[in-house]
Amino acid sequence: MMRTRPLKVALLGCGVVGSEVARIMTTHADDLAARIGAPVELAGVAVRRPSRVREGIDPALVTTDATALVKRGDIDVVVEVIGGIEPARTLITSAFEHGASVVSANKALLAQDGAALHAAAGEHGRDLYYEAAVAGAIPLIRPLRESLAGDKINRVMGIVNGTTNFILDKMDSTGAGYQEALDEATALGYAEADPTADVEGFDAAAKAAILAGIAFHTRVRLDDVYREGMTEVTAADFASAKEMGCTIKLLAICERAADGGSVTARVHPAMIPLSHPLASVRGAYNAVFVESDAAGQLMFYGPGAGGAPTASAVLGDLVAVCRNRLSGATGPGESAYAALPVSPMGEVVTRYHISLDVADKPGVLAQVATVFAEHGVSIDTVRQQGKDGEASLVVVTHRASDASLTGTVEALRKLDTVRGVASIMRVEGE
Amino acid sequence: MMRTRPLKVALLGCGVVGSEVARIMTTHADDLAARIGAPVELAGVAVRRPSRVREGIDPALVTTDATALVKRGDIDVVVEVIGGIEPARTLITSAFEHGASVVSANKALLAQDGAALHAAAGEHGRDLYYEAAVAGAIPLIRPLRESLAGDKINRVMGIVNGTTNFILDKMDSTGAGYQEALDEATALGYAEADPTADVEGFDAAAKAAILAGIAFHTRVRLDDVYREGMTEVTAADFASAKEMGCTIKLLAICERAADGGSVTARVHPAMIPLSHPLASVRGAYNAVFVESDAAGQLMFYGPGAGGAPTASAVLGDLVAVCRNRLSGATGPGESAYAALPVSPMGEVVTRYHISLDVADKPGVLAQVATVFAEHGVSIDTVRQQGKDGEASLVVVTHRASDASLTGTVEALRKLDTVRGVASIMRVEGE
Repeated sequence: MMRTRPLKVALLGCGVVGSEVARIMTTHADDLAARIGAPVELAGVAVRRPSRVREGIDPALVTTDATALVKRGDIDVVVEVIGGIEPARTLITSAFEHGASVVSANKALLAQDGAALHAAAGEHGRDLYYEAAVAGAIPLIRPLRESLAGDKINRVMGIVNGTTNFILDKMDSTGAGYQEALDEATALGYAEADPTADVEGFDAAAKAAILAGIAFHTRVRLDDVYREGMTEVTAADFASAKEMGCTIKLLAICERAADGGSVTARVHPAMIPLSHPLASVRGAYNAVFVESDAAGQLMFYGPGAGGAPTASAVLGDLVAVCRNRLSGATGPGESAYAALPVSPMGEVVTRYHISLDVADKPGVLAQVATVFAEHGVSIDTVRQQGKDGEASLVVVTHRASDASLTGTVEALRKLDTVRGVASIMRVEGE
Repeated sequence: MMRTRPLKVALLGCGVVGSEVARIMTTHADDLAARIGAPVELAGVAVRRPSRVREGIDPALVTTDATALVKRGDIDVVVEVIGGIEPARTLITSAFEHGASVVSANKALLAQDGAALHAAAGEHGRDLYYEAAVAGAIPLIRPLRESLAGDKINRVMGIVNGTTNFILDKMDSTGAGYQEALDEATALGYAEADPTADVEGFDAAAKAAILAGIAFHTRVRLDDVYREGMTEVTAADFASAKEMGCTIKLLAICERAADGGSVTARVHPAMIPLSHPLASVRGAYNAVFVESDAAGQLMFYGPGAGGAPTASAVLGDLVAVCRNRLSGATGPGESAYAALPVSPMGEVVTRYHISLDVADKPGVLAQVATVFAEHGVSIDTVRQQGKDGEASLVVVTHRASDASLTGTVEALRKLDTVRGVASIMRVEGE
């Protein structure tokens, strides 16, 4: 029952991901046709630099006028792999207006304007799919919004940035410092020349906003996500982590509050026990740990970036969207009915590992312990090391709110006997 | 845009899984309605023993006449969690004939009669979903048939039976023998009184048939799956595995041949390196490792059984099927267009770990090595241990076909100097 009129696909962007999408559409044309129920045809490829040779793509399809391409009116699906906010936002909106469904890999845009884009898709009865926007090839958006649609998700915690995981893994396995590990990541092509978006957690924060929105059926804006980068993680932090049987990962954590009445989303480095499944995620791999009422603990693991893996996710969406076109249906749109409030970071409750440089004299521990007690932060363990009048004090707390911990640290800094707060790190996954 | 007429669900079976499905349908009714776009109503529950009290289920809904329930004509979705071939097969077929879509958790039936059931669903324009049939709560069927629909899957290798993983993990971590570990699994409720279906690999083989069919777009029957149980794995095998930096898992392995022209599916115990993600899957957890052309290596991890986890998968399917009903569409049906031949076990190529009891005298190794060479099986490493005229010889081979290895072992058994073949185990995941 194969339909013979092909579905027409416009490809916006032909870089690392786009060229792989085009390549697979050509080499696997028969498979795609069989799986969709109709052939798919690359109807146009919008690029910025038309002079660059693009192997395997008919030059007649290449255009610099993306606007005209999405307005052609005969396009069934627009695949947007340009990235960034504009012109991607305008092009996607225009695609819906002109009758196309959209497959996008654009995490920044989805995190910032997902609600408006979903609304535009819904208004025109079209699909907006974006599996490739989070964790590359790992099937994650579809499992969250479809497989777990009958369950209640309580936590999504993941390594969603390959660059930072490569750097942290390198620091962990070799004892290297941050800069040395970053240099190696850059040399190997895992980090960009300007690594800010990765190492400062902006990329992971965009993904956290998308994941939290889907997991909790609540609109979570990028501004709602607390963000802390990993540029200040040191070799000493890894040594401390090892003493606790932990390693350090940059985590995106989306949580439903214990009372169910609010949610939080955050990105920061954290210690996690070596026994946690996320601890053994190596190199540039990504993995996302999901906890739900009925399913319990699930984990999804795979390559989080790269041309071919991202193209795999894009093409999976393309098949689904094309099947929907043929049947006249649409897939799940935005689900924000729960509309839970997003709480600020101060209300997040977790454990903390704090290293203090203190004077090596009697009574210091008592002073420090008093400050913790006054702020309602209960201490789990303390370890003292001292010599020559200098000492360090490592405190691991029980669960406490971020606000309480912040208050504690401010008060500690005011103690004469505390020379400095060497590091504060959250402890997750226990 | 909520439709007010509820979708009617008939539940066949109200045991461990069914009662969880009914409970969640009640407690999460508002969430399910919001996610589907219409309320869902439990319209009837077919059971064998109506006298048993079922908390939270209106006794008026309970019936022993499953046949009449599926024929009522007003049922939108039949959820089948009875298990086994009959009466499940007849009831599901009847459900399609009477206009219902079906969500099933029945691996045995899907493995044996999946093609016929898909055909019946297609004939009546209805859905057949069965995420819960493989690896419990882990989203796996949907990722394979939808997320990876634009990719080419080359291998699916997984731990898909929690009982046997619990037993093997126990043997690995405590040094216990098979019987001792099985007894503990039985005492803790992980193994049934008659554990045959689990320990002899029948359960895993059914799942392998389903996974291979979906992964390779090819019909794979239960009889096509090579099956070997794990009752003969010994503490000595684990000791040998440790010496190689491996552990032992019961694996379901579905592979596309290197030339792409055929596929294989098999279930057997195998050594895998401790560094492989599947090696660290503990207790009764399941995990499935997927390798594809574009996505690379993916892994899906979670609880493979249990009432609530299985219900999570059933309800995810229920939401999808209900959404399809409302939009008048159907989800992906059987995809068997590739119709690749399924090769017999003899053509499977892998590595082997073979322990021989041999006479401790000069020339034995030369004799043994000659037999391997004559059968075209290349040796990677040999380890000899001997005392008092008895010796053991551990041979690890390079990759060779199962047929070559079988021929080798037959010839080895005929050597006077070989007193016995203590164990043969495949080595996977390298």
